[in-house]
Amino acid sequence: MRRWNGWGDESTVVELPANGTDFLAQRVGAGQRLDDATLAQVLAQVPPSRLPPHVLVSQDAEERVRHARGQSLPDWLAMREGRFEVFPDGVAYPETAEDIRQLMAWAKKHDVVLIPYGGGTSVAGHINPQAGERPVLTLSLERMSRLLDLDEQSLIATFGPGANGPQVESQLRARGYTLGHFPQSWELSTIGGWVASRSSGQQSLRYGRIEQLFAGGTLETFDGPLELPTFPASAAGPDLREVVLGSEGRFGVISEVRVRVTRLADQESFYAVFLPSWEQALAGIRALAQARVPLSMLRLSNAIETETQLALAGHPEQIALLEKYLAFRGARTGKCMLTFGVTGNRQQNAVSLRQAKKLLKGFGGVFTGTLLGKKWAENRFRFPYLRHGLWDAGYVVDTLETATDWINVDTLLNKVEASLREGLAEEGERVHVFTHLSHVYGEGSSIYTTYVFRPGASYEQALQRWSRLKRAASEVIAHNRGTISHQHGVGRDHAPWLPVEKGERGMAVLKALAGHFDPEGRLAPGVLIQD
Amino acid sequence: MRRWNGWGDESTVVELPANGTDFLAQRVGAGQRLDDATLAQVLAQVPPSRLPPHVLVSQDAEERVRHARGQSLPDWLAMREGRFEVFPDGVAYPETAEDIRQLMAWAKKHDVVLIPYGGGTSVAGHINPQAGERPVLTLSLERMSRLLDLDEQSLIATFGPGANGPQVESQLRARGYTLGHFPQSWELSTIGGWVASRSSGQQSLRYGRIEQLFAGGTLETFDGPLELPTFPASAAGPDLREVVLGSEGRFGVISEVRVRVTRLADQESFYAVFLPSWEQALAGIRALAQARVPLSMLRLSNAIETETQLALAGHPEQIALLEKYLAFRGARTGKCMLTFGVTGNRQQNAVSLRQAKKLLKGFGGVFTGTLLGKKWAENRFRFPYLRHGLWDAGYVVDTLETATDWINVDTLLNKVEASLREGLAEEGERVHVFTHLSHVYGEGSSIYTTYVFRPGASYEQALQRWSRLKRAASEVIAHNRGTISHQHGVGRDHAPWLPVEKGERGMAVLKALAGHFDPEGRLAPGVLIQD
Repeated sequence: MRRWNGWGDESTVVELPANGTDFLAQRVGAGQRLDDATLAQVLAQVPPSRLPPHVLVSQDAEERVRHARGQSLPDWLAMREGRFEVFPDGVAYPETAEDIRQLMAWAKKHDVVLIPYGGGTSVAGHINPQAGERPVLTLSLERMSRLLDLDEQSLIATFGPGANGPQVESQLRARGYTLGHFPQSWELSTIGGWVASRSSGQQSLRYGRIEQLFAGGTLETFDGPLELPTFPASAAGPDLREVVLGSEGRFGVISEVRVRVTRLADQESFYAVFLPSWEQALAGIRALAQARVPLSMLRLSNAIETETQLALAGHPEQIALLEKYLAFRGARTGKCMLTFGVTGNRQQNAVSLRQAKKLLKGFGGVFTGTLLGKKWAENRFRFPYLRHGLWDAGYVVDTLETATDWINVDTLLNKVEASLREGLAEEGERVHVFTHLSHVYGEGSSIYTTYVFRPGASYEQALQRWSRLKRAASEVIAHNRGTISHQHGVGRDHAPWLPVEKGERGMAVLKALAGHFDPEGRLAPGVLIQD
Repeated sequence: MRRWNGWGDESTVVELPANGTDFLAQRVGAGQRLDDATLAQVLAQVPPSRLPPHVLVSQDAEERVRHARGQSLPDWLAMREGRFEVFPDGVAYPETAEDIRQLMAWAKKHDVVLIPYGGGTSVAGHINPQAGERPVLTLSLERMSRLLDLDEQSLIATFGPGANGPQVESQLRARGYTLGHFPQSWELSTIGGWVASRSSGQQSLRYGRIEQLFAGGTLETFDGPLELPTFPASAAGPDLREVVLGSEGRFGVISEVRVRVTRLADQESFYAVFLPSWEQALAGIRALAQARVPLSMLRLSNAIETETQLALAGHPEQIALLEKYLAFRGARTGKCMLTFGVTGNRQQNAVSLRQAKKLLKGFGGVFTGTLLGKKWAENRFRFPYLRHGLWDAGYVVDTLETATDWINVDTLLNKVEASLREGLAEEGERVHVFTHLSHVYGEGSSIYTTYVFRPGASYEQALQRWSRLKRAASEVIAHNRGTISHQHGVGRDHAPWLPVEKGERGMAVLKALAGHFDPEGRLAPGVLIQD
């Protein structure tokens, strides 16, 4: 069963290895474990629903608890403490686009706020109901998860918006295809959510971001369905798909998603290379991206992330052996691990691999084969579970991310890390901070930073610490030419910084669109555009 | 000097070869040459300007003639006949973004309509002033054509909006870079115009369409500049670049364009392959696109275009030899010529070429080496001049284009060709029609159709014939899942069919945006969105 107060299924447990606990104790101090609330305690807080009855709407308390929060750090703390504050007044489970239209009309009639809900995996505060006069209905799309059509000539698949990653891939793989979209949240997040939040997957280097995969579909608006036809390309005015992409539920409810799929590749392998220094590593992956070497994924950990990953890997003897080999080959302290993938037919892959190895060798790269790459592939969706392992050991972990042009990657990365590392210095707390670049482009790269800190003596203190860190890093990102999000979206958590990025006139455009689609502010209010 | 009543520079003359005239006479009948007006005759028609004086605005009659029309077929007929009907009241030549802002404020103050003007190459009626109460000022951006910045790490170049193709490429090539954007109009069209009209170049297979190349820039609006920052990718809400792309001057004036550039490739070659039949050819290029073979251009002519090209090539003996060879290898009547390019480093190109040849061989492809590919590359920008050669021989030529998913390419192509071929049957006229696919995607392809017909006894008749053909083909495109434009844009000529594509609710979004940016309807009225 899916956890009501954390990530994923209860049967999956990822613990911190013993040497991992030592590693963190050295870096940020001994863990501080806070007490968790029980589901029963939370259920007792759920107030009566303010909604009139509707056949598609559940007012069940547990349903309401399970749809009240996403997976941001504030959500996590609220769930662990059992301090939810606001619950939706009900959860609807439409099965068709017509159901969605009926629910939207009903919401309008009864002055109800609507929150479109995919997999509930937002880490930016997209789906939390806000306190207010109007009742809130969460609109879960989980019953609309089927592959509705597959055009094998044009490689277009049509899905219900609520299909999550495994549902998308299993239905496609049965026919010999893949979407190739693997965000870290893949196990739970949905295709409609990916579109609404401009998601990016681990193999976007081959398959593209959701912007490139999204071929068309339908957005249900208060004026009726906005149909987005599929064309391979068009010069017929602004692309309205791009208005829906990133709309985060503000403009309507996505009821159908058409995506560009790919025939399953003959072969796929992942490799690890160690670069002797960050400078060489950075230059190496920039060269790879700009030479258009056809890789399918690439993740470069900085020196601290490399060290942390090796420490938390849990096999100290093997790791010691690896480090000895790497040192012999010139990759010592300060070394950076680069994981990359090739996907395609055997001939293409052989050429890509040869190109990548040759190019990286020029930057001092030490190639270690497929073992660590396989490990990465096995564990690619396990990282979110580690928050549980860390929490149980008395640590809080969160991540944040941005993207910027190559000329600014190193500067911005250092500033973001420094803002976090020194963010709790006033209270004498240390923060363990590390970073990887996992989406590279000719123009620049994403920057994905993880930070671990101690919660302090109380939930209140933990939230304060997080707020301080999040605010400091977000300020740095927004004011140093970084986008406030490369892949997590805006939600409410990033909304204060969106005006820095879009500018006053850009925000005016977004507000004009929101006013056009939803003049009564009934859809996901406060998300994307602050009230 | 640039022609005032046709395409390109007066020094470039492309004549129809003798056997070409015979070929067309057989297909559509003997040519009918109409008399042209002189520039002096047109200048005599220019009325006094209704504009108050402004230091940046020329009211010179010849300037106004030269900015009154684009390159659509109706424009061509109007220019040849000397029946311009409406002239702009003046032409402004801003040199800076501040000049543009001043001119916009001035236009508002004096109730002037503004038409942003790049290279004047529109074939869809973007830049023609309309008759009306308000004076019209054409805003030429030709003095803003400089490379302003080149970030060699992020591969971002910043240009003034008025840089035309040669200005873009020469400034970049001097530094070792290319934009790689080569629309047929490249000699005259501008980088700002490419963005405003969602242009696509002949090598978009490698470099991407302008949507992929456009990294950011500035749109001057009546509320001030809308800055579009450069990020390699972002999940921070809808992408406002996509609102500017295809805005066709309705939302503001582009004052700066930042584009993603590429280092000059080591090597580039173009090859020709002949496929025995259209069915095999179509299946072959779909396979090439979907297997992601890294080609840089691809153009597949259908059997009639292949026949026409060989007939108009002007070297009957050599062509006869080629046909003999092709027939011996199995490509006889009904054969289709495929031209493709590889661009990159030598190793990559060798692999790409090997893959392409192997794959096409499976579809019966007969490889002929680089000779015809070289010819294509030499003549890649000469096609627009051929309108002159045909006109002088008594024929009218126009092109139209769309894009659709692979499942629909053959059906739509046949319907479009049929609508044109039979379009003048009522009056007993024949139309020579042929097609190529020149932009292929995993999902589908562009369809680019050329049609040649006789003008009849008068300009009026010629325009009527064109209107009938254009309307018939546009109806077929819009109502058969084609986009009304893959690369020419909407302008006024395609605006009647945009609502079929965008739908009532999509048009409402565009109107909301137009209302937001330009509540007084002062910018390019009637373009994109019909009045």
